[in-house]
Amino acid sequence: MLLDRKGSVPLYEQIKNIIEQQIKNGELKEGEKIPSERELCEIYDVSRITVRQAIALAENEGLLYRSQGMGTFVAKPKIKQELTRVNTFETSLAQHGFVASTKLLKAEATPNSIYLAKLLDIPISEKIFNLQLMGLGDEEPIVYYNSYFSYDLGQKMHKTALDTSQKNKPFSTLDLYDSQSDVTPTQIEQTYEATVSDESLSDVLKVPQRSPIFSVTSIVYAHDKPIEYREAFYRGDKYKFFITRQLELKN
Amino acid sequence: MLLDRKGSVPLYEQIKNIIEQQIKNGELKEGEKIPSERELCEIYDVSRITVRQAIALAENEGLLYRSQGMGTFVAKPKIKQELTRVNTFETSLAQHGFVASTKLLKAEATPNSIYLAKLLDIPISEKIFNLQLMGLGDEEPIVYYNSYFSYDLGQKMHKTALDTSQKNKPFSTLDLYDSQSDVTPTQIEQTYEATVSDESLSDVLKVPQRSPIFSVTSIVYAHDKPIEYREAFYRGDKYKFFITRQLELKN
Repeated sequence: MLLDRKGSVPLYEQIKNIIEQQIKNGELKEGEKIPSERELCEIYDVSRITVRQAIALAENEGLLYRSQGMGTFVAKPKIKQELTRVNTFETSLAQHGFVASTKLLKAEATPNSIYLAKLLDIPISEKIFNLQLMGLGDEEPIVYYNSYFSYDLGQKMHKTALDTSQKNKPFSTLDLYDSQSDVTPTQIEQTYEATVSDESLSDVLKVPQRSPIFSVTSIVYAHDKPIEYREAFYRGDKYKFFITRQLELKN
Repeated sequence: MLLDRKGSVPLYEQIKNIIEQQIKNGELKEGEKIPSERELCEIYDVSRITVRQAIALAENEGLLYRSQGMGTFVAKPKIKQELTRVNTFETSLAQHGFVASTKLLKAEATPNSIYLAKLLDIPISEKIFNLQLMGLGDEEPIVYYNSYFSYDLGQKMHKTALDTSQKNKPFSTLDLYDSQSDVTPTQIEQTYEATVSDESLSDVLKVPQRSPIFSVTSIVYAHDKPIEYREAFYRGDKYKFFITRQLELKN
């Protein structure tokens, strides 16, 4: 395999790019074991350090995963979520062969803040409700949801979350509204950002610090009234979002 | 200012969170100078190291910027791009007070690959055209575009890019179609991912390695025929995307 040894792209990155192409081309298939470090050194005529850097980078991008004592394998493709349709958490994951589950991390009344009071249109003197969920795929943390509601709605959401958990059904907060007959969301405003994980987020999602994080902030509305403010933090190596848009024809 | 000294959230992260809230609340305004490191040590009763970590984190998230010998200031908010409407590159940046400009980095014929042949529906034997652009805001790199076209269309796009550059007008490839009477894009498929920069991308965008990157992959269609495959890499600390969606009412 020919690497460009005089160019500006480091060797480990070139090797990662080749592995990426092989996965895209179908030469390397999901779940397939890739050659050992020693074999890769021979194939590309590079040092062990370079091979390790290439594998670490590919792992970081979610292309490969290492299994202790077993070797390195081609990972499942990232979970793709359609932006213009709202799928249940379970469906989004099932489409990619992941078994979804949800853990209830925290559910409690919390003092209001100037910021949340404004977003949720609730007087600063009233307490609000904080619900924290962890969405897992094949038992691994995938997304951490941090939601705020009015105290009343939060308590109802908490009860619905407990009921749904007892049935062993995975859910996100959006899914919970379906079981709530009195509140139906009609609109959602979302902001998408690429960030890296800090100490506490790395702890929660069980990833190294400064791992890529896809952060989605949402305000959920029911007929123009904000009912939920939610921060969702998706593991960047596991998730991607997609959209198809018609472009306006210009004259 | 009270920090939680027994909790699991590190002090520097708590301080960063307070600064973030103050910016959101409007207590700290765009362009305003924040207190000096020494003053922050006194305000929060923490060490200089903790204050530096807090500022570094806030800087990394695009909340603050440091100016050599001048102090630390509140940054311009991230550029927000509406997902459901297609704005010109110039308009997106102008809405946030940035002066946009575009640099032509590379324009050349390149051999086809199995992957690109499939995506662009061009026989593998035909060469294709690669156009690389850098989008800048206030002279700083913001987004790196790497586009592939059929050889013929690529040459036309290159010519239009040169003409537009000469008029000192900023542009992305999507903007160039407007000046092309013979090809009009009708649809675009996009994938959004959170990643971190590798060595070559850090070089191009002038950011430290493992900086947050918002990566957008697009296929542009003209009446069901793919005409452009584009990878765009936005600085995560400078850019965010937003969307407003109607939710289907369930029965």
